[in-house]
Amino acid sequence: MNQKDLQAIPEGSGAEPSGEGFYPALDRFSAFSDGVFAIAITLLVLELPVPPENVPLLPALRESWPDFLGYIMSFAFIGGIWLTHSGLTKLMKRGDTVANGTNLLLLLLVALLPFTTSVMVTHLSSPDVGTAVFVYGINLFFASLTLTLLIRYIAREPSLVADDIADETLQRIARQRWISIGVNSIAVVMALIVPFVAVGLYLIQTVLLLAYPLVGMRRRPSRN
Amino acid sequence: MNQKDLQAIPEGSGAEPSGEGFYPALDRFSAFSDGVFAIAITLLVLELPVPPENVPLLPALRESWPDFLGYIMSFAFIGGIWLTHSGLTKLMKRGDTVANGTNLLLLLLVALLPFTTSVMVTHLSSPDVGTAVFVYGINLFFASLTLTLLIRYIAREPSLVADDIADETLQRIARQRWISIGVNSIAVVMALIVPFVAVGLYLIQTVLLLAYPLVGMRRRPSRN
Amino acid sequence: MNQKDLQAIPEGSGAEPSGEGFYPALDRFSAFSDGVFAIAITLLVLELPVPPENVPLLPALRESWPDFLGYIMSFAFIGGIWLTHSGLTKLMKRGDTVANGTNLLLLLLVALLPFTTSVMVTHLSSPDVGTAVFVYGINLFFASLTLTLLIRYIAREPSLVADDIADETLQRIARQRWISIGVNSIAVVMALIVPFVAVGLYLIQTVLLLAYPLVGMRRRPSRN
Amino acid sequence: MNQKDLQAIPEGSGAEPSGEGFYPALDRFSAFSDGVFAIAITLLVLELPVPPENVPLLPALRESWPDFLGYIMSFAFIGGIWLTHSGLTKLMKRGDTVANGTNLLLLLLVALLPFTTSVMVTHLSSPDVGTAVFVYGINLFFASLTLTLLIRYIAREPSLVADDIADETLQRIARQRWISIGVNSIAVVMALIVPFVAVGLYLIQTVLLLAYPLVGMRRRPSRN
Repeated sequence: MNQKDLQAIPEGSGAEPSGEGFYPALDRFSAFSDGVFAIAITLLVLELPVPPENVPLLPALRESWPDFLGYIMSFAFIGGIWLTHSGLTKLMKRGDTVANGTNLLLLLLVALLPFTTSVMVTHLSSPDVGTAVFVYGINLFFASLTLTLLIRYIAREPSLVADDIADETLQRIARQRWISIGVNSIAVVMALIVPFVAVGLYLIQTVLLLAYPLVGMRRRPSRN
Repeated sequence: MNQKDLQAIPEGSGAEPSGEGFYPALDRFSAFSDGVFAIAITLLVLELPVPPENVPLLPALRESWPDFLGYIMSFAFIGGIWLTHSGLTKLMKRGDTVANGTNLLLLLLVALLPFTTSVMVTHLSSPDVGTAVFVYGINLFFASLTLTLLIRYIAREPSLVADDIADETLQRIARQRWISIGVNSIAVVMALIVPFVAVGLYLIQTVLLLAYPLVGMRRRPSRN
Repeated sequence: MNQKDLQAIPEGSGAEPSGEGFYPALDRFSAFSDGVFAIAITLLVLELPVPPENVPLLPALRESWPDFLGYIMSFAFIGGIWLTHSGLTKLMKRGDTVANGTNLLLLLLVALLPFTTSVMVTHLSSPDVGTAVFVYGINLFFASLTLTLLIRYIAREPSLVADDIADETLQRIARQRWISIGVNSIAVVMALIVPFVAVGLYLIQTVLLLAYPLVGMRRRPSRN
Repeated sequence: MNQKDLQAIPEGSGAEPSGEGFYPALDRFSAFSDGVFAIAITLLVLELPVPPENVPLLPALRESWPDFLGYIMSFAFIGGIWLTHSGLTKLMKRGDTVANGTNLLLLLLVALLPFTTSVMVTHLSSPDVGTAVFVYGINLFFASLTLTLLIRYIAREPSLVADDIADETLQRIARQRWISIGVNSIAVVMALIVPFVAVGLYLIQTVLLLAYPLVGMRRRPSRN
């Protein structure tokens, strides 16, 4: 790995805005991102309230349904972002200063999700449900937007992409991202009008992501 | 690594349900899973109650035995799942959309264990002990089932397996998984009838996993 | 990897102060550091207070502005240290006992940031604001200083650097580090005199780090 | 990597107690361990109490000295175990069932340290100080012992060691481990008689580990 990365320094050093070849190798870019994704997704469990000993267990758990809903929805969302992110790095040759900064911004928004999830589920039965779902939705929206900006930036910079096949795949993915941006925009607007429609949209996304593989299992195995 | 992964894209792209070659490289599949396993297993410690300064220490620690039991049992269970999971990825060549989704579901269930462990130990002396052990057991059961489904799926898809020797090993492991499913089913049923039998079953599994290596140490070193 | 690392042992073993070739391979040096950086940066979210159900949401969130400020500032700071650190390991061939110990000290100071961030934001409107910002600033200062010492040590030890081009880059970066030390020194002194000037300095650094990439996106793509 | 690991299966499968070649690849063994080490070491910060807004800051921080002492001591201890552990995996070719189980036990004890650290510092001024330091010391002792058992086991199994030079290094390290075991035994006994002598011993270890690199920095750079 060293060899390849070091070769990248002379050619990259003039073209970089300020990093001057001192940006991270792709393996640490991935490892650090994987770390933040894994921690954010696992911290979600800390928001689930354990009923105290003297409280009947089953009714208390049933009453916590918004907490479980939030756990599953945000788990699916972070999982989905991770899937796209790790698909992206597979097509990349290296990062640069802009890619690293955009990635940091993405991680900042992902790491915020345990908080905004908790805000939403805490206020799901309060008069502030609209604001609460909006806060959650705006977090999802900006995370999705930043991921899209990152993909588009990589797709525009041939020096960061692994090769021509990767380039074509990236161009296609970059275009498809606008669907995700669109759905998230609608959900954010809905949050302010009919909050539970927004929650429904998030729920559909969740079911698609987590139920899909079980459906896929029943298909005939692929032939290659 | 880049080279090999990219070669996989053209051949895989037609056979994939929807990922179209944009699924993660195996190293990030492993790294992200390792992250979630490591965090879930380490978060267990946050459930252990530190006796306050003005309380006699030893009696307070002794009274917390269910917390320590839960810590050790869930540590062993997550550790065991990790062992199998990392054995699995060693035999894999790559993942696909179904494998990734199933893996996310597995991680969701593993990340839930600090919560269900806490539910169980909090209610171990309450009238709701049956429900509490059932909640814990059902989490273990579905985690074990999802891991089995993941192994069976990989074992059925030749394009995901490293080579023929790996394939045979996987087939055998996939069959053996039903023992684990069986034990976990019995424990779940027992939780509703005689909860402490279920706890006993989990304890036996724990001792087998954590005490075994110390026994193995006394054996003669292997000869190759 | 094994081959290369093991070759490093005979040549390094005589020159090492005490590690005698038993220091970690560079990949675990990076992986462990990535882990601590990722966890420290993600734990920051746990300091954000979720307004309880019966409290009007929007005013409560608005009142928590110091918490959000601390979250973003410390996220940017840890992110910035990570960027430099991962740029550093890319130029390294291996570590040694001194590098590992200095790195541990750096990680100790980084892992402390969720605590000092919380100290600062909790006391931002109290009479102790000066002390609070000083505590935060001194943590940032020593983290920045330790990183500088680490870079300078690596830059001085040819046996740890990947090759001559890496060496030149490191020498230049080592010199530039004094700017960061200087700014952090001024901020620490300012904390005791006019605390909000110190906060302002941290804020400028934050904006530069997180806003820069978005500006960079609009530039023409690089040509190589 | 796949190729090399898979070659290890046929030769290893007969000699393994039960894993039958289904043990993890060395990279995931390291990655999972790094994850647990990094999380345990970073969770220590959660035990540090943030003085509330209406309390004078400086006296409150000064009163928390046992918390900071515990933070630094356990950070150094986990850091030291990690250093040895990562030095160990560099000399290993692969793991087996016994090595994995012993490693899990080591991680269980390391992940427990944020708890026992908190127990010790909470009771450092209470009549139970002896018990509290003993609880902490026994955790350190068993962690150190398990690490020693792991190193000795690897050192005894030629099939797990990378090559002959690695083998010699391991044999020497395995012998040196008894010093660590000895010091930790003395500290545990001391905890029950004069607790602060035990704390003093832990403090000396801490200073040696964290101050050593700064001393080493002033030495002449090595010549190779």
